[in-house]
Amino acid sequence: MAAKNRQIVLASRPQGAPQEANFRLVESEIPQPAEGQFLVKTHYLSVDPYMRGRISEAKSYADPVGIGDVMVGGTVGTVIESRHAKYQAGDVVVGNGGWQEFSLSNGEGVYRFDASMAPMSTALGVLGMPGMTAYFGLLDIGRPQPGETVFVSGAAGAVGSVVGQIAKIHGCRAVGSAGSQDKVDHLVNDLGFDAAFNYKNVKDYAAKLQEVCPGGIDVYFDNVGGPLTDAVFTQLKLRGRVVVCGQIDQYNAEKPPQGPRLLWHLIVKRARAEGFLVFDYFSRFPEAMCDMAGWLQEGKLQYRETITDGLENAPRAFIGLFQGENLGKQLVRIVKE
Amino acid sequence: MAAKNRQIVLASRPQGAPQEANFRLVESEIPQPAEGQFLVKTHYLSVDPYMRGRISEAKSYADPVGIGDVMVGGTVGTVIESRHAKYQAGDVVVGNGGWQEFSLSNGEGVYRFDASMAPMSTALGVLGMPGMTAYFGLLDIGRPQPGETVFVSGAAGAVGSVVGQIAKIHGCRAVGSAGSQDKVDHLVNDLGFDAAFNYKNVKDYAAKLQEVCPGGIDVYFDNVGGPLTDAVFTQLKLRGRVVVCGQIDQYNAEKPPQGPRLLWHLIVKRARAEGFLVFDYFSRFPEAMCDMAGWLQEGKLQYRETITDGLENAPRAFIGLFQGENLGKQLVRIVKE
Repeated sequence: MAAKNRQIVLASRPQGAPQEANFRLVESEIPQPAEGQFLVKTHYLSVDPYMRGRISEAKSYADPVGIGDVMVGGTVGTVIESRHAKYQAGDVVVGNGGWQEFSLSNGEGVYRFDASMAPMSTALGVLGMPGMTAYFGLLDIGRPQPGETVFVSGAAGAVGSVVGQIAKIHGCRAVGSAGSQDKVDHLVNDLGFDAAFNYKNVKDYAAKLQEVCPGGIDVYFDNVGGPLTDAVFTQLKLRGRVVVCGQIDQYNAEKPPQGPRLLWHLIVKRARAEGFLVFDYFSRFPEAMCDMAGWLQEGKLQYRETITDGLENAPRAFIGLFQGENLGKQLVRIVKE
Repeated sequence: MAAKNRQIVLASRPQGAPQEANFRLVESEIPQPAEGQFLVKTHYLSVDPYMRGRISEAKSYADPVGIGDVMVGGTVGTVIESRHAKYQAGDVVVGNGGWQEFSLSNGEGVYRFDASMAPMSTALGVLGMPGMTAYFGLLDIGRPQPGETVFVSGAAGAVGSVVGQIAKIHGCRAVGSAGSQDKVDHLVNDLGFDAAFNYKNVKDYAAKLQEVCPGGIDVYFDNVGGPLTDAVFTQLKLRGRVVVCGQIDQYNAEKPPQGPRLLWHLIVKRARAEGFLVFDYFSRFPEAMCDMAGWLQEGKLQYRETITDGLENAPRAFIGLFQGENLGKQLVRIVKE
């Protein structure tokens, strides 16, 4: 055990794309749990596109991270000391420990993870927030019916890869877009997508979508926004549903991004676009986890992880998300198991 | 009875805003009903913003009107000769007779109107397609709850004026925008809106919306699209609903209109935007009509009509819609009762 707690704090707010200089590594004393608290040693921490919003000045669905504050983020680790009635040393817990090696918790927003079910890292991926996002976004907002066509952008990411597989499990046709030929091959060959394309090689998105979704799109799970999403709106089927999950295309925009006006398509297609936040589904995580763990064990659900070692490399791993460097869930490993 | 049937046909497709030269008055023989048909003499015909889409080349939710074809549109009139089992001479019927004095029908899309319930003209307004649009759009898509704030754009129009009043009947706060001070006064003084503003006198829509909807907007009934709608998206409350009914701001656009990207707001607010077409609710018109006629009789629902006399003036009445000339439902009267 390190004698100090290493932490990554926000040094400055990024203008446009985040840079390593926006973050700083600091050391502090390992904190001691007070009554009702416990101390967690982090094994993995999660870096996710949504964090770009949390380090902007603008208030979004949560207050921004302050300058000098430890970066927020999901973590999985083990309780090493507890003065909390519900947790004991040795428990594996998922929570929001942030970008640091040790964190204190009072149990809020924390749950125990059954490490006999699947590797600890999955608690931040396929069985964690990204998996839950895919599950509730697709099933609760998208409501796919057997035989329908589900198109997902950012399909090789931690969320998108699960969306396509759940679509298949529900008897849908799953089609995805990703940013490299390797990712496209992975979607089709490993994950069972019916079709996929590399958006970086496509000039006319609408024509490409017509080719891969010839009858149109019933459910669009949108991780990216921007011009690809504009094209999808033109290819929606009657009563199509757009699950607005992420807009990574514009997270780094310095000015409010402009695009074609899309609402007219909703009238013509009697379609619906709906946003959601996975945190609103927290109380329903157990039901989803049960389904997902079952599909994992049956081999119906595959997952990939991109693992970066060392807390000091968390900023680089985060920045890489916007360059499409990750296949599946991007994690930072703090403790080698 | 005129010896001839006068008709307005589409002479050419408008570029941008429609002009009178896009239409032509022609005369033809009054048709004779074949077996299974009946002949209707039109009393009123309806001109509506949606017709702009029907005279564009682009296929929308229906095929475009062909050059030389009689303009489509809702009508109310009396059956003057029938070879149809269900209709008799003297019946008052609502249908899609188009812009002409006489029309044949086989009964499809036609229903009888009880003229003892309300004046015949209401069959095209508050008890017709605009009223049904307001009713189903607000209640079925918007699902307002008592105490919520409903904002409607184009609030002095045939649809918007009914939306605000139904919102009040359902215990909501109703706020609207319109294009003149007279209309604003009408909304607040005659129709019981809680607040209204003249969008033409407002530079900063978001600031104005904050003033008239201080807690934000739960349900937005969008008749206009464009910059006002952009501002509403920034003022949505958590789990807000956008009923996408019309986008009159862009019907005459010659190029695909651009604007700020709006989907991000749906994530932040866990909000929903949904389009609809009133025609999809045809089978449920009776239930709505029953509610609406009751509210009319109880004095809870007021309506205004702007009536233009003479078939030959239908193009001008239609063009006036885009200049905001109408208060309430714009009708063309063919037969003075």
